[in-house]
Amino acid sequence: MVALRVVSARRASRSEPVRPHVGIVTEKAALRGALDQARAAGRTVGLVPTMGALHDGHAALIRRAAAECDLVAVTVFVNPLQFDRPDDLAAYPKDLDGDLAVVAAAGARLVFAPTSTEMYGVGAQARVHVAGLADRLEGAARPGHFDGVATVCTKLFGIAGPCLAYFGEKDFQQVAVVRRLVHDLDLPVEVVACPTVRDGDGLALSSRNALLTPQERAAAPGLHRALRLGVAQVAAGERDPAVIAAAVAAALATEPALRPDRVDVVDADTLEAPGGHTVRMRILAAASLGRVRLIDNLGIDL
Amino acid sequence: MVALRVVSARRASRSEPVRPHVGIVTEKAALRGALDQARAAGRTVGLVPTMGALHDGHAALIRRAAAECDLVAVTVFVNPLQFDRPDDLAAYPKDLDGDLAVVAAAGARLVFAPTSTEMYGVGAQARVHVAGLADRLEGAARPGHFDGVATVCTKLFGIAGPCLAYFGEKDFQQVAVVRRLVHDLDLPVEVVACPTVRDGDGLALSSRNALLTPQERAAAPGLHRALRLGVAQVAAGERDPAVIAAAVAAALATEPALRPDRVDVVDADTLEAPGGHTVRMRILAAASLGRVRLIDNLGIDL
Repeated sequence: MVALRVVSARRASRSEPVRPHVGIVTEKAALRGALDQARAAGRTVGLVPTMGALHDGHAALIRRAAAECDLVAVTVFVNPLQFDRPDDLAAYPKDLDGDLAVVAAAGARLVFAPTSTEMYGVGAQARVHVAGLADRLEGAARPGHFDGVATVCTKLFGIAGPCLAYFGEKDFQQVAVVRRLVHDLDLPVEVVACPTVRDGDGLALSSRNALLTPQERAAAPGLHRALRLGVAQVAAGERDPAVIAAAVAAALATEPALRPDRVDVVDADTLEAPGGHTVRMRILAAASLGRVRLIDNLGIDL
Repeated sequence: MVALRVVSARRASRSEPVRPHVGIVTEKAALRGALDQARAAGRTVGLVPTMGALHDGHAALIRRAAAECDLVAVTVFVNPLQFDRPDDLAAYPKDLDGDLAVVAAAGARLVFAPTSTEMYGVGAQARVHVAGLADRLEGAARPGHFDGVATVCTKLFGIAGPCLAYFGEKDFQQVAVVRRLVHDLDLPVEVVACPTVRDGDGLALSSRNALLTPQERAAAPGLHRALRLGVAQVAAGERDPAVIAAAVAAALATEPALRPDRVDVVDADTLEAPGGHTVRMRILAAASLGRVRLIDNLGIDL
């Protein structure tokens, strides 16, 4: 038997109707037990791994999971292993009450919110590394980041068991890393990538947006505008990744508050330099606003 | 439905009665399907990962698994990822017909014997690394070896699903690495370590023993004798690991055909240097005979 703490979602300010009961489990054995029990009863399981501070992008993942699976578990865990900067980890927004309201409204009933000690114990030594893919692009900018992502996802999949797992394309390289580890380690998981959700002005939803000052928030859509300019160049026939990247970087530079960090133009399937075989291109960019680093990406079929 | 190729075990020269039917699957999906089906029917699954060339040590693992589990799958896969020397991989003995006879006689009905392409496909990038534990002792002598072990075991566990997994203590550090990755990655597997099986003269059974010349085979029990001498020293009150290791190394040196490679005296639970907290000590040694490198170990409770 699995003990669930049933919590009423308290936030009433959201526009969606808040459904009252979401079970929270904080122990790995309880999550595994609940999902094993569901599968034994013939129900399919959806997993939505998150770091909390849930927004409408997460809600879209949860709604899709709820539409496609019988039981959806949302994990809320700020994974220290994937942060390369202690200040970034310390500043990462947390709002479990708000998260419960989002989960309930989006149609899920189960939240897994473990402590770091529960997840890693003392002296954990095993790490999952996706060679090549984890070291390039964002991985080059944030050493160890994707090892942290790969390791925590392998753990979550190990706890959850066979499931569909939902990830947002805002973190495009993360989706590729997770797909790769699921494939390479033969995990019984189907990875489902979902389109990025954006505010009306184009800014990709991100938990980190909550850390922006009003001035920074006003400048932030420049990241998406620059990516759209890159896509327009590809649509107009440009194929040279260096030319496209330079155009995106130049567009980023027109927004004084944005400090461009990196622009990458890659084959969407390999995340390597596009070539004659490329059928889908992806443009990825990262830029900082004050202490907040944002990433975004857009794709185009050739 | 899972297609099994049913093969009659052909070797009749073994002393155990050969039971006739062992199903062989060569595809990951077929193994997963068979074991999922068994679990869905309420049966427990035992997994015995091997590199084939099965001997009585493997038979002991299979018999124990058959005694404790409803369905036992024996995997036969010479894992290229865990070989640090191409000549060692090329020379590794293979005998699938003999393996089937051992499996049948020991009471298992299912063998998973994939090709390397089936296991790894093309361009596999994900690796599992057990930091610290994988880099010391045998890991220092064989760079990458335990990453290969950890990666293939994670894959086999991913394919097999929830199970008990049986390993021999002859590969003592391997058992520790596998236990660690199962714990750290939250895999739904219970690792069962089984005592080393020895020939009458003390030589630990190993698939590599088949590669020894008669002269080398005659010298090989010197490895076990040296370890016993170390254990006798501990039993007599010696606690200094350097003194114990030196005595084992000196004993190895008395057998001219044996080229001692390493002797390690460690805490059996941490595989680190023994200290005041140590309750179980383990002495591990490696030595070469011609082109064949053998390992062995013995434990003693303090």
